[in-house]
Amino acid sequence: MNNQTFSKKHLTKKTDDISEWYNDVVLRAGLVEYSDVKGCLIIKPNGYALWESVQKELDLWFKADGVKNVYFPLFIPMSLLQKEADHLEGFSPELAVVEYAGGEKLHEPLAIRPTSETIMYKTFADWVQSHRDLPLKVNQWCNVVRWEKRTYPFLRTSEFLWQEGHTVHKNAEEADAMAQKALGWYQKFYEEFFAMSPYVGIKSETEKFAGAKRTYSVELVMPDGKALQAATSHDLGDNFAKVFGIEYLDENNQKQLGYQTSWGFSTRSIGGLVLTHGDDAGLILPPKVAPTQVVIVVIGNKQDAENPVEPFADEIAEELRAQDLRVIVDVNYNNSLGRRINNWELEGVPLRLEIGAKEMEQNQVTSVRRDTFEKQSIDRANITATVISQLDTIQTDLLEKSKKLKTDKTKNVNSFEEFKQAMDSDKSFIRMYWCESLECEKTIKDATKATPRVLELENMAEQADEKCLKCGNPAQRQWLFAQSY
Amino acid sequence: MNNQTFSKKHLTKKTDDISEWYNDVVLRAGLVEYSDVKGCLIIKPNGYALWESVQKELDLWFKADGVKNVYFPLFIPMSLLQKEADHLEGFSPELAVVEYAGGEKLHEPLAIRPTSETIMYKTFADWVQSHRDLPLKVNQWCNVVRWEKRTYPFLRTSEFLWQEGHTVHKNAEEADAMAQKALGWYQKFYEEFFAMSPYVGIKSETEKFAGAKRTYSVELVMPDGKALQAATSHDLGDNFAKVFGIEYLDENNQKQLGYQTSWGFSTRSIGGLVLTHGDDAGLILPPKVAPTQVVIVVIGNKQDAENPVEPFADEIAEELRAQDLRVIVDVNYNNSLGRRINNWELEGVPLRLEIGAKEMEQNQVTSVRRDTFEKQSIDRANITATVISQLDTIQTDLLEKSKKLKTDKTKNVNSFEEFKQAMDSDKSFIRMYWCESLECEKTIKDATKATPRVLELENMAEQADEKCLKCGNPAQRQWLFAQSY
Repeated sequence: MNNQTFSKKHLTKKTDDISEWYNDVVLRAGLVEYSDVKGCLIIKPNGYALWESVQKELDLWFKADGVKNVYFPLFIPMSLLQKEADHLEGFSPELAVVEYAGGEKLHEPLAIRPTSETIMYKTFADWVQSHRDLPLKVNQWCNVVRWEKRTYPFLRTSEFLWQEGHTVHKNAEEADAMAQKALGWYQKFYEEFFAMSPYVGIKSETEKFAGAKRTYSVELVMPDGKALQAATSHDLGDNFAKVFGIEYLDENNQKQLGYQTSWGFSTRSIGGLVLTHGDDAGLILPPKVAPTQVVIVVIGNKQDAENPVEPFADEIAEELRAQDLRVIVDVNYNNSLGRRINNWELEGVPLRLEIGAKEMEQNQVTSVRRDTFEKQSIDRANITATVISQLDTIQTDLLEKSKKLKTDKTKNVNSFEEFKQAMDSDKSFIRMYWCESLECEKTIKDATKATPRVLELENMAEQADEKCLKCGNPAQRQWLFAQSY
Repeated sequence: MNNQTFSKKHLTKKTDDISEWYNDVVLRAGLVEYSDVKGCLIIKPNGYALWESVQKELDLWFKADGVKNVYFPLFIPMSLLQKEADHLEGFSPELAVVEYAGGEKLHEPLAIRPTSETIMYKTFADWVQSHRDLPLKVNQWCNVVRWEKRTYPFLRTSEFLWQEGHTVHKNAEEADAMAQKALGWYQKFYEEFFAMSPYVGIKSETEKFAGAKRTYSVELVMPDGKALQAATSHDLGDNFAKVFGIEYLDENNQKQLGYQTSWGFSTRSIGGLVLTHGDDAGLILPPKVAPTQVVIVVIGNKQDAENPVEPFADEIAEELRAQDLRVIVDVNYNNSLGRRINNWELEGVPLRLEIGAKEMEQNQVTSVRRDTFEKQSIDRANITATVISQLDTIQTDLLEKSKKLKTDKTKNVNSFEEFKQAMDSDKSFIRMYWCESLECEKTIKDATKATPRVLELENMAEQADEKCLKCGNPAQRQWLFAQSY
């Protein structure tokens, strides 16, 4: 299924042009393909399997916390979307709208959901009556549409897949705690499964979700020093509850407003994964989420009627599968060994075992780590234990590498001049005191294309007696600034 | 979350008005709720959990067969939809169309997918080049939109959820075998999980899928004697391959057309499940798919500071959960015991255990089967074994009941007069010889509202020397006719 014809023989080098490298990799590794609809991608089996690894894990965590899955309509009547003014303003430029259906003009245009707050909360107003109905916690796995002018595989597409969790609570504290809990799930998933070390914290007023009181964000440091907003969780306060009339009777029979959260994790995450771990040979997948964790490459040629190495390889594969490892045996002698190896490296399979007649004779295999290309001979008897340990090491090492990238690409500067230089040359995250004024934010953006990405959780309570790096006015807290994807 | 206010106190009786009973049950049991968008439903947690039971099982079977999950865009350019004439004709009256997106009029209107043959097959033409690329087998879990004038929860809605499998094969035989394999999965799911016994076979020319060579169908006999088309699998032959140019080079380097299948199973199935098993008390769920298999109702009242029965109930729940059973402990003393029991019966939980102070003293519990209301005292030591065995029995008995319904509601008649009478009074499936002419099909439909539902697989090869019950012309095979949902 990889019959894409590419004009160039080799991948662009990641360090030469990360953007072109990225496009090459997502296409050639069989993650996505362009479709006939501008801005909408086809997610191919290798790409969708990564999304399934996200779904499997997050869904477990949500359910263990009492979140129930639901499904709300794809369509949102325009009048509902218009109810929360900030929300409408935030999303209206990106809406796709249906005016004709079933051969007739509709009484009211229907927007295709860019997110489901409005259609859900209209209904939540019925579901929530008493304090006994709270907390209400639902989630849906679905597609959403936000029309984009310029698109980029996974990172910015007009249609994407995500989960959106929505909750209602008794008070502001419970809602904020829930928003932080969801943020924690996302951080944990990135660290433990995608082997990526993000910054987590809150967004500035300008960058927060349309209609939210506060937006928590997972922010990733990309290899080019730019920021990728990788998941968000919103404390909505009572903003939507007021508009949609989400009220409950408390223990004393008094009417109270509900406090809400919403939080989402999307297929955008896969773009971040590719950008973070990949190298000039292609994709590198963390073992925990790799659809294929081990490929056993059997050396042979198609002239041989029977290759005695195959049963030996199959036996090893079965032994590994018995440990719940995801293993493929490659006996595709039609292609040259070099091309076969290149392909597995391109697809990012974490560990490769090579077995030829010589290895079999010596009762050994050669393992090659995808992330380091490190080779090792393993005796037959030690294969399973060694493979498990190597996969663990790869998972850990990738996370360590990501932590190092984050540290290396985060800088402190002493003046706005230094800030500007940093954004011109070697882009990075800049941690600096900022007065938190909109005006200053705008000036910085106009001069450097950088915006406040996140105020780290641990710095939220800071009350320093410092000065804003830009304007010199009093500044209490350090923010992370960067250019963003 | 069940704060729906209903005007009537009691459910409509199923035998009085099955249609009103059905509406009552799906709303009150928390499966669905109407939305602000006509024809689009909200699937609530109890309903979505049933869909997840479908997804979990079918997805395993697909993957074991080498089918890979993918995701294709929601939007289909009108020009692509127009490529296969029959297909367009079949779906165009039901299309929802986007003409404006991102604040601009689009160059070409985009249909929201009613099914994905056209957008997928355009791409398959690239993916399929050589015989080595075959068979190509993909599936997607997604939403589709077919605008409906009159809607009915689950059974007929403008948006619904489904899976659509699509394959390409080397020749007509392999494609037909694949279509039959998918049909087999659907039949097996209905029998083993939904405890329903369907008819399986092929559709008449009039009823087959728009663009297919042959449509296989799973057809359910509903309690009112009407038919519900419950899943379909299409042998597309080379119809789409010709239009979209899906060709491959065979072993001899000759160009050949691909042969295709598509097959889908949707949330409609949940409507069939409700209609088949439910009774005047509400839903009855087969244990294998019930989100809650056992509810332990603790008897007590809210004046008691501590109810000593609760630890006893929790201990039993833990013991059952250790056997992977899905168990809820109900200690909601705010409601009367009668109301609590009514609610669990309404939601269709297969087995209820009642425990009060008396039961605990005697070291016993009382079990009540949802399907038969049969009560039994179970000694503490035997609880787990008895519960497992009772759940098995319920699953088996429900299937047996469904088989009996199918047999009871399938009749042979000796004349078209008898056929007409059968459709007027006690509706049922009629098995009869039919000449297979379109004209005869139309006459029968006009006179009785009945259509050929399916030619059973085992009767496909029949070459009888019989006469058509309607027109008297030669007829070789027996078809099942019925009115349909």
